[in-house]
Amino acid sequence: MRMYDIIMKKRNGGKLSSEEIQFFIQGYTRGEIPDYQVSALMMAVYFQGMDQEETLALTLAMAQSGDMLDLSGIRGVKVDKHSTGGVGDKTSLALAPMVAACGVKIAKMSGRGLGHTGGTIDKLESFAGFSTGISRTQFMTQVEEIGISIMGQTADLAPADKKLYALRDVTATVDNMSLIASSIMSKKLAAGADAIVLDVKTGSGAFMKTLEDALALAREMVRIGNGAGRHTVAVVSDMDQPLGRAVGNALEVKEAIAALRGEGPKDFMELCMTLGSQMLVAGGRARDGQQARDMLEEAVRSGAALEKLAEFIRAQGGDPGAVYDPSLLPRASHVEPLLARGEGYVREIRCDEIGVCSLLLGGGRETKDSEIDLAVGLVLEAKVGDYVKEGQPLAYLHYNDPAKAAAARERFYRAYTLGGEKPQSPALIHRILDRE
Amino acid sequence: MRMYDIIMKKRNGGKLSSEEIQFFIQGYTRGEIPDYQVSALMMAVYFQGMDQEETLALTLAMAQSGDMLDLSGIRGVKVDKHSTGGVGDKTSLALAPMVAACGVKIAKMSGRGLGHTGGTIDKLESFAGFSTGISRTQFMTQVEEIGISIMGQTADLAPADKKLYALRDVTATVDNMSLIASSIMSKKLAAGADAIVLDVKTGSGAFMKTLEDALALAREMVRIGNGAGRHTVAVVSDMDQPLGRAVGNALEVKEAIAALRGEGPKDFMELCMTLGSQMLVAGGRARDGQQARDMLEEAVRSGAALEKLAEFIRAQGGDPGAVYDPSLLPRASHVEPLLARGEGYVREIRCDEIGVCSLLLGGGRETKDSEIDLAVGLVLEAKVGDYVKEGQPLAYLHYNDPAKAAAARERFYRAYTLGGEKPQSPALIHRILDRE
Repeated sequence: MRMYDIIMKKRNGGKLSSEEIQFFIQGYTRGEIPDYQVSALMMAVYFQGMDQEETLALTLAMAQSGDMLDLSGIRGVKVDKHSTGGVGDKTSLALAPMVAACGVKIAKMSGRGLGHTGGTIDKLESFAGFSTGISRTQFMTQVEEIGISIMGQTADLAPADKKLYALRDVTATVDNMSLIASSIMSKKLAAGADAIVLDVKTGSGAFMKTLEDALALAREMVRIGNGAGRHTVAVVSDMDQPLGRAVGNALEVKEAIAALRGEGPKDFMELCMTLGSQMLVAGGRARDGQQARDMLEEAVRSGAALEKLAEFIRAQGGDPGAVYDPSLLPRASHVEPLLARGEGYVREIRCDEIGVCSLLLGGGRETKDSEIDLAVGLVLEAKVGDYVKEGQPLAYLHYNDPAKAAAARERFYRAYTLGGEKPQSPALIHRILDRE
Repeated sequence: MRMYDIIMKKRNGGKLSSEEIQFFIQGYTRGEIPDYQVSALMMAVYFQGMDQEETLALTLAMAQSGDMLDLSGIRGVKVDKHSTGGVGDKTSLALAPMVAACGVKIAKMSGRGLGHTGGTIDKLESFAGFSTGISRTQFMTQVEEIGISIMGQTADLAPADKKLYALRDVTATVDNMSLIASSIMSKKLAAGADAIVLDVKTGSGAFMKTLEDALALAREMVRIGNGAGRHTVAVVSDMDQPLGRAVGNALEVKEAIAALRGEGPKDFMELCMTLGSQMLVAGGRARDGQQARDMLEEAVRSGAALEKLAEFIRAQGGDPGAVYDPSLLPRASHVEPLLARGEGYVREIRCDEIGVCSLLLGGGRETKDSEIDLAVGLVLEAKVGDYVKEGQPLAYLHYNDPAKAAAARERFYRAYTLGGEKPQSPALIHRILDRE
């Protein structure tokens, strides 16, 4: 088998066999096939596409390119959750304890990542002492015993995906649904869960700007997951404005704690309930969505969900005090209201601008070596559809460095559009896709 | 300017500016832009194409990536000739002296190349002592004084093309008319001639199998050449069977000498007259094709063309004795007739199979370090349209190594197809394309 023939076949619109896909992924992972042949193939895939079988084969080959986590030693159905990302997306922080409190095992790998805030791991480090650098044995034992563990993503999880994504990123070959879906799903398959619930975001703050694209990606991932024998469900949810009100690491943790007390923003609570129901049903703990929702609401009301978060933080070396007293979380030295400069209905909040504010304050990473300031960020007071008067606060800016705050402040006002007409309330949940 | 944006622009069907093309070619030549970005761009070009302006800009950027030969010190119009290659194509060997004998200056760079026989340089080395490794000063002086010189292609002629072609060759991005045309023309432009006559071959033995493709390539090259201010003409000629009768280095030299005496095979003579006429007109030595043809025929009849070959060989250190006595050229130790195994009209001679015979005998290079046996090859006795009886020789095999001959012999019979019906005589000259 020769890489040249594989490129030529795809270039000419042919269908690659599983053997050809394995040959290319294995050879590339081992460094035997050079970048320049792979980037040519990726561009051919961009133009010619890959069908469902090819996409599944690519995902499996990438998943198998490194360690495949074996969670079969843990009793019960292990459920993983993945979000395609957005602004203010702290969902895992609240959702994982809620679901674990209802008896579904959460064994999750998370990353740090670049972006306007840190990843789930960074956010969790708002709890003093908390660490995701735990051994695989501890991870497994903890899932078995308390039903929840989150560990840092190891380098050897789907290394082919890591290498391929870095190449696609510099050769303008990212934008292909099969390649995007296989990249996400290869890591999920390697991470070993039995069931996977995907939160596919759509809107101005999402990777998929249009509902059509988000649905296509969701469909592709659901097909791959179920094709690989994992029960996979996708929820397509809105990211046309930030989720909830808090954007910033510790601020999001605080909002997640509020949600676990039943006091989170309405949209955020609703998303947790929707995703959580899917996880309880996929995990075999509830027979349908209504029963699942009742269970989740009871876990919140009884305090079991909040208690699960404390148990989880403690198990991984963190101080759970902040779970009960969020004022113990990292706090910024300054909090300043950002006042409305006009009057009217909030018609639009541009997610990308809010994200840039958080990044400018120091809440995210621009390069992988950047230090994150966990305390800084924004808390939005007005969301789409709210009516505001001039001088009323649109948001509160939490900052430590006045120079950074000045930059963020100017940027902030680009995000809000006020108008005389009340806009339609945006739908939060656009679609739920189950196995076909 | 970023290479990423250039790839993205072409991927999305945009038109690259001259600045973008220069940025990419200069950066790639200097090793600042990596192979993997260039191969992705080449694949995007394969799918999205390049228009005439982009193709011209690419050709100029590649021509200017190394030395540009300045022939302006030599008086008169300097004419170059290039063939896209075929089996038995010894045209330059006869054509250059004919044209030079009529007063048009021939300043030509030639290569060795891989293939079923050597390149023009290898063939010329059939004359003992002949060398193309001459200084640039000698090259210029010789063109000025005797009107003809052929030197080996230096490494620094269009280095961008060399690097780009090697990359395209392993990434399945060769087959694009703009890229093929710019590759050929960048070297021609850098070689400095005022006028360029192109022999674009079409048929089973050519790079362009169909007349349609050959015409497209010819049109593209004529556009580039004239766009770059060089008078450029293309002759589209037939390569559906080998040209002339001889295939093999010294055997082709012998046939070229015969042509210079007016005794070459009819098709080969006709091609020399057609291309030669174009060169004389382009060089300003004849006002039209008919006058040019009369001049060429007179140069052959008078012996001036043959004398010019001897003068040229002598000037570059070769022994011109063989020009007058071809039996002094390298000769194989064995000559064996290959007899017809049936009776009928020769309906087809597959060029690729005849080429393989020559290669198997040792007449060509499989890798760039292969040694060539100048003496071996084939001389065809029957061409398409001839009637042969069983046992009559189809060709003579010239060989030194009986084991190689055995392999070539078996292969030879795959090339010939005999049939009861007389085939149409194939046209030799399909089209002549001048500036538009």
